[in-house]
Amino acid sequence: MRIITISREFGSGGRELGKRLADLLGFDYYDSEIIAAVSESSGLDANYVQHTLDNHGWQEFPVTFGGTMHSVAYVQASRIELLVQQKKVIEQIAEIGKNCVIIGRNADVILKDYKPFKLFVCAETEAKMQRCRARAREDEHLSDKQLIRKMKEIDKGRARTRDFLSGTAWGQRDAYQLTVNTSGWDIKKLVPVVAAFANSWFAENE
Amino acid sequence: MRIITISREFGSGGRELGKRLADLLGFDYYDSEIIAAVSESSGLDANYVQHTLDNHGWQEFPVTFGGTMHSVAYVQASRIELLVQQKKVIEQIAEIGKNCVIIGRNADVILKDYKPFKLFVCAETEAKMQRCRARAREDEHLSDKQLIRKMKEIDKGRARTRDFLSGTAWGQRDAYQLTVNTSGWDIKKLVPVVAAFANSWFAENE
Repeated sequence: MRIITISREFGSGGRELGKRLADLLGFDYYDSEIIAAVSESSGLDANYVQHTLDNHGWQEFPVTFGGTMHSVAYVQASRIELLVQQKKVIEQIAEIGKNCVIIGRNADVILKDYKPFKLFVCAETEAKMQRCRARAREDEHLSDKQLIRKMKEIDKGRARTRDFLSGTAWGQRDAYQLTVNTSGWDIKKLVPVVAAFANSWFAENE
Repeated sequence: MRIITISREFGSGGRELGKRLADLLGFDYYDSEIIAAVSESSGLDANYVQHTLDNHGWQEFPVTFGGTMHSVAYVQASRIELLVQQKKVIEQIAEIGKNCVIIGRNADVILKDYKPFKLFVCAETEAKMQRCRARAREDEHLSDKQLIRKMKEIDKGRARTRDFLSGTAWGQRDAYQLTVNTSGWDIKKLVPVVAAFANSWFAENE
């Protein structure tokens, strides 16, 4: 079984690269599917699950969700519970035994015994901003400064969650097989060379 | 003209990868050739040039070389002078106009206007230690701790020199097109996939 995990900077195009990689290689693809599975197993609303899991910021103030005010302690406890559930879902994906690509969610750490090909995707700030602007909702009007701050905060949150779950730092280069900078690439053209790279690595390490 | 620059962690196998890459692609290869050229243009002994340029530690004590004690100020001045000469040599290499691979020496920064393919090579600590042990002189008896300290110091020196020469941090992932972890690879097998990656990138960016 071959597993490719993708960690990425916000706005780098890592998700698109992962999806296309799975398509090209004929691998299963897991991204929001994981949220859906956590939602099902926990009996909680998928939006709530996503909101809670993606709150990488470990916020330190109460939140209102669904009209109810939740205390910090409640939110943190709920979040940790959901991270545990998410870990189980990711382990179950691996137990299916089929080749797959998994986006984010520290799957590289959770599935380390399966020797996944660990890919990290980054890009230059300017390129990430362009990508974010192209995908932003029409009602989103962030200045460049605000957008850069938002991107940094999301990445910082990802780093914080990883730190909580594992001993290796998010983005630490020797924790991945390959770190790809998508700047200057049409992602479609990048896919076959990354696929060839991963295939060779699997051939060497199986 | 296609230029591939290789920055690397000490012990990662970056030099071997670079040499083999040049052989496979039929590119010129520059490594110690740069030292020889600086030696020739400066009229200084090649060993002295190498010693001074590779003294990334920016040492703060006098050194004895060739039986003569040199003051700190002398060594620093001499080093900066040689860095300037080295920069000229690297620019001359590019002016030749032939495809080439250049190892280290901040060629990626010096030649940025030529849009080189910038490769960073890293490896896990254990793998780097093995590589260093395999290549060590017979009379070198470093403990694991001493070897790790030596590797870190050399990398720190490289980072310091880069910091002195450019605005981007050494090893900063978005300053390179690709960061490859050589752990788990036979370097020979890694060469064709990196070559294919670089070729695709050039095709996209020419």
